[in-house]
Amino acid sequence: MINKRLEKLRQQLSKYNLDAVIIPSTDPHQSEYVAKHWKVREYFSGFTGSAGVLVVKPDETALWTDSRYFLQFEEECKAYEITLYKQSIPYAPEHVQWLCDSLEENAVVGVDFLQFSKAQMDHIKELSKSKNIELKNITELVGEIWTDRPSLPDFPIDIHPLEFSGETTRSKIQKVQHKITTGKADYYLFSRFDEIAWLFNIRSQDVDFTPLVTAYALVGLENTRLFCNKKRFSSSALATFSKLNIEVIDYDEAIVELEKIASTKKIITDVSSLNYAVYNAVTSTFIFQNSIVKELKAVKNDTEIAGAKNCMLKDGVALTKFFIWLENELNKRSISEYEIGKKLESFRQQQEFYMGESFAAIVGYKGNGAIIHYTASEKGAAMVQNEDILLIDSGAQYKDGTTDITRTVWLGGTPSDEIKTTYTAVLKGYIALEQLQFPKGTVGMQIDAFARLHLWKLGLDYPHGTGHGIGSFGMVHEPGQGFTTNIATSTGSTEHAPNQLTTIEPGCYKKDAFGIRIENIVLSSLKETTAFGEFIGFTPITLFPIDRQLIKDSLLTASEKKWFNGYHKMVFEQLSPRLDNDEIEWLRKMCQKL
Amino acid sequence: MINKRLEKLRQQLSKYNLDAVIIPSTDPHQSEYVAKHWKVREYFSGFTGSAGVLVVKPDETALWTDSRYFLQFEEECKAYEITLYKQSIPYAPEHVQWLCDSLEENAVVGVDFLQFSKAQMDHIKELSKSKNIELKNITELVGEIWTDRPSLPDFPIDIHPLEFSGETTRSKIQKVQHKITTGKADYYLFSRFDEIAWLFNIRSQDVDFTPLVTAYALVGLENTRLFCNKKRFSSSALATFSKLNIEVIDYDEAIVELEKIASTKKIITDVSSLNYAVYNAVTSTFIFQNSIVKELKAVKNDTEIAGAKNCMLKDGVALTKFFIWLENELNKRSISEYEIGKKLESFRQQQEFYMGESFAAIVGYKGNGAIIHYTASEKGAAMVQNEDILLIDSGAQYKDGTTDITRTVWLGGTPSDEIKTTYTAVLKGYIALEQLQFPKGTVGMQIDAFARLHLWKLGLDYPHGTGHGIGSFGMVHEPGQGFTTNIATSTGSTEHAPNQLTTIEPGCYKKDAFGIRIENIVLSSLKETTAFGEFIGFTPITLFPIDRQLIKDSLLTASEKKWFNGYHKMVFEQLSPRLDNDEIEWLRKMCQKL
Repeated sequence: MINKRLEKLRQQLSKYNLDAVIIPSTDPHQSEYVAKHWKVREYFSGFTGSAGVLVVKPDETALWTDSRYFLQFEEECKAYEITLYKQSIPYAPEHVQWLCDSLEENAVVGVDFLQFSKAQMDHIKELSKSKNIELKNITELVGEIWTDRPSLPDFPIDIHPLEFSGETTRSKIQKVQHKITTGKADYYLFSRFDEIAWLFNIRSQDVDFTPLVTAYALVGLENTRLFCNKKRFSSSALATFSKLNIEVIDYDEAIVELEKIASTKKIITDVSSLNYAVYNAVTSTFIFQNSIVKELKAVKNDTEIAGAKNCMLKDGVALTKFFIWLENELNKRSISEYEIGKKLESFRQQQEFYMGESFAAIVGYKGNGAIIHYTASEKGAAMVQNEDILLIDSGAQYKDGTTDITRTVWLGGTPSDEIKTTYTAVLKGYIALEQLQFPKGTVGMQIDAFARLHLWKLGLDYPHGTGHGIGSFGMVHEPGQGFTTNIATSTGSTEHAPNQLTTIEPGCYKKDAFGIRIENIVLSSLKETTAFGEFIGFTPITLFPIDRQLIKDSLLTASEKKWFNGYHKMVFEQLSPRLDNDEIEWLRKMCQKL
Repeated sequence: MINKRLEKLRQQLSKYNLDAVIIPSTDPHQSEYVAKHWKVREYFSGFTGSAGVLVVKPDETALWTDSRYFLQFEEECKAYEITLYKQSIPYAPEHVQWLCDSLEENAVVGVDFLQFSKAQMDHIKELSKSKNIELKNITELVGEIWTDRPSLPDFPIDIHPLEFSGETTRSKIQKVQHKITTGKADYYLFSRFDEIAWLFNIRSQDVDFTPLVTAYALVGLENTRLFCNKKRFSSSALATFSKLNIEVIDYDEAIVELEKIASTKKIITDVSSLNYAVYNAVTSTFIFQNSIVKELKAVKNDTEIAGAKNCMLKDGVALTKFFIWLENELNKRSISEYEIGKKLESFRQQQEFYMGESFAAIVGYKGNGAIIHYTASEKGAAMVQNEDILLIDSGAQYKDGTTDITRTVWLGGTPSDEIKTTYTAVLKGYIALEQLQFPKGTVGMQIDAFARLHLWKLGLDYPHGTGHGIGSFGMVHEPGQGFTTNIATSTGSTEHAPNQLTTIEPGCYKKDAFGIRIENIVLSSLKETTAFGEFIGFTPITLFPIDRQLIKDSLLTASEKKWFNGYHKMVFEQLSPRLDNDEIEWLRKMCQKL
């Protein structure tokens, strides 16, 4: 099927006189996870990873993705003639240089202007300049092949109430307007779904696992335009918006409406999220700045923090019930990874304000745990028994917050020294980063290595970043702060600030043998102010025991043991009031002192 | 005097219809330390720091420098109306945005095209575009005011022999030619003195403390042109060059000669070191790449490593003799910081192949140690007594290598708990970074924080990078690898590789009280290769005890004590064969086990 689609695409290439097309994994809003309508790269390659770019030429089909997805690519694309190009830096546009090198002068390359940001187009133009390569819009071409393409999402939109958001839309818009004034501009244009959902306190289900809304938004000093299908709102929502001078205009009209802005106006926007089709249509002056909403949204208010902590309690309770079920059930039968994922979901479903999973749960048994973004399919899932190692990375969307937790557990038998040593090094790394105190102004790339130090000592490492921001009933990977080894990503280059929620999730993976990862969400706060400035640190808010069966005690220092015991004391104290007696006993055992 | 010069400069501003001039601290070769001829910024501001940019407008004189130099600026410029703008990132061109903001549209800004790299000019042009600001060359203007400007250096040039360089000029040039061929270019143009000195195995004394030669070099596939005054070479040197197809052409003719290259030719060069005057004159196509020589030079060959180790022995012997002298002398009298620096120099002078200091020694007593790049003047120096704390950062140029070492010592009385705790945290940081094993591909910014961790815990920090590359009878600060908190500098963004020499020098400074710094040079090497790749680590090669009087034993872990004892065992074993009996006894005491 994929081969047929590629065949058709090649025919279109020749029909439109194109020498190549670039098909990214994103949508017109630079989303990481996209609605079915925008899964163009998956349609033509079969590859379902959240990051990756397909390049199709008459004589070659090539896909760029990063180390998180190498094993998944092999699995999903083995039947097709697609060459894998391994990116050393996730999201780095390495394919552009490759393409420019391989094309003749005056070649024509097709790209969907909607799927490329202004910044990305600038980059392609810069690299292709010397060969005078033309870039042609192919919005229509894809539609001609993909005739049964799903339409854009059109679910009803909910207002995210103040009891969960903690700040009114009016207040948020005023902050944006202040930025417009100080920036001597007329408008602020937002393209990213997560920023728009935050700004307008709206939620829907346009993107799998993520309660976002397909929209653009143009904030002015007098009034605001929200480009989003009107019929998706209740009349009371529209009335409230109207009082705030927010006009709702259908999504399809966005570009036409934006075109009408006078050429004398100045629009602040984020060059990395503005798509080229919009940029191309608007004749006003753009002022490119990092999005103010990205910055504001990353710092959680008291309501959001209280919500997040409440979600940790709910996740902790669900995981406790789930792991007790798993333990008992594995003594009776083997269970597929797929069933385990579904069962875990069902325990979370019982919790208040549950809205769904925050991403496809990763349930990886033995070697499957080494496939970093593994998703067990109903048919292909491995059968889990009461032995060996199991990695579970899962999370939920609740109305009061978003969760993300990884635990790696030992199911029975005697763990090897290699597994215990590795697991302990991962744990030591987690503790080192979580316990770190660092000056304000520190970015993720500066401190990511604290989580790797103990693995590096053993000649080990992990091929992914150490953590990311997380939304409040929003995106599970929320820009910008986090931890990673390279500066080119927002998790590497963004300064940590108090009141942010970030994951810390070191791991280690041995192909065909095991995957280990330990992940908590931590809350950052101001720890002290000295003559040297303000110092920030983290406090873990995730509440679930870390499997002691895999720990080699002798490798932990006294202070690491102290951390371990303190964390488990907190977990027990917080979760036990919400559990029944049997559950409390199980948890007590899991939270024993080391 | 400075005020008069600024007065004259302002008159020239109005004569040439300039709205501002930017005066950097560099020369046409983007050197960090420059010949007297190029000390234009110092001439107009009195500020002698190695980094800093002066901006003069009719109504304001402003200087940008980084935290290493804040105290020095206050000291040197207090008598003049110069506003200090504190840079958070060393060398970041923050003044450009400030200037663009403060100027009217169509303003004219004077810059000496020779003193700005192509990359810097691009940056200024980009920021000044929206105001249509014109950039005018002021090479002549400065000369009109600075009538007694020193001429360019013209010392004899020595050939750096194979017994020290370890690689012939022929071999080095062949590597450059290989790069020209693979880059499909015709020439490789070098502007940096350190790169040219390395490539041609030549040394002189054009720059204070640095044995470099004022030159440009153009390497072609058939022949090579070295733009450097011919009369500076011996006839045998010229004959040798001639055999290698190296033509020596006078420095003054460089731009005129470079202009003659056909416009169809392609020249590879480093955009950050090519000055704008040359760029402007040459009509050929430039291909901008990081300099291949910078990369090659940073990795030392066996001869250079052996030389560096030999220099460590010599430095260790000189420092031992010096500290014994200091101890004895302080029991009799107080001694000025200036005299101490001179005396230290005299002990190094007795060592084989000694060529001079590698930078102005920093001898900072008590609070003077907190001025990071402090230089005691003959008159203003503090008197050192047999009490309290003394920081000495010094180094030498030997024909077989360049050295750089800092020790902080306690001279008598009882050190406070604060000083001991701080000193111990600095030491712990040094050990943490030096003992780190990390994967190939790791850049300085990723691991710099290991040297800060223990200070951060106490709410302390230091306002400088943690280390830099060092040359082989070359620059004491050699690009590119090192450790720093920001990615914008080469020490932050360059990957560490085996066989590099790098300093590790954490510190902590309390204004008017004390300065603490511990600095060793470390050699990097491949430690192990695993399924996760190659792992690199460091070995210290500097040989001199670290003062135990300032250590709070109880704060050191067992493994830190083990490191301390192992290091001192090595220091004693290596130095003692070169010392007399009294000296050996002194050293034995200093190298006792903790």
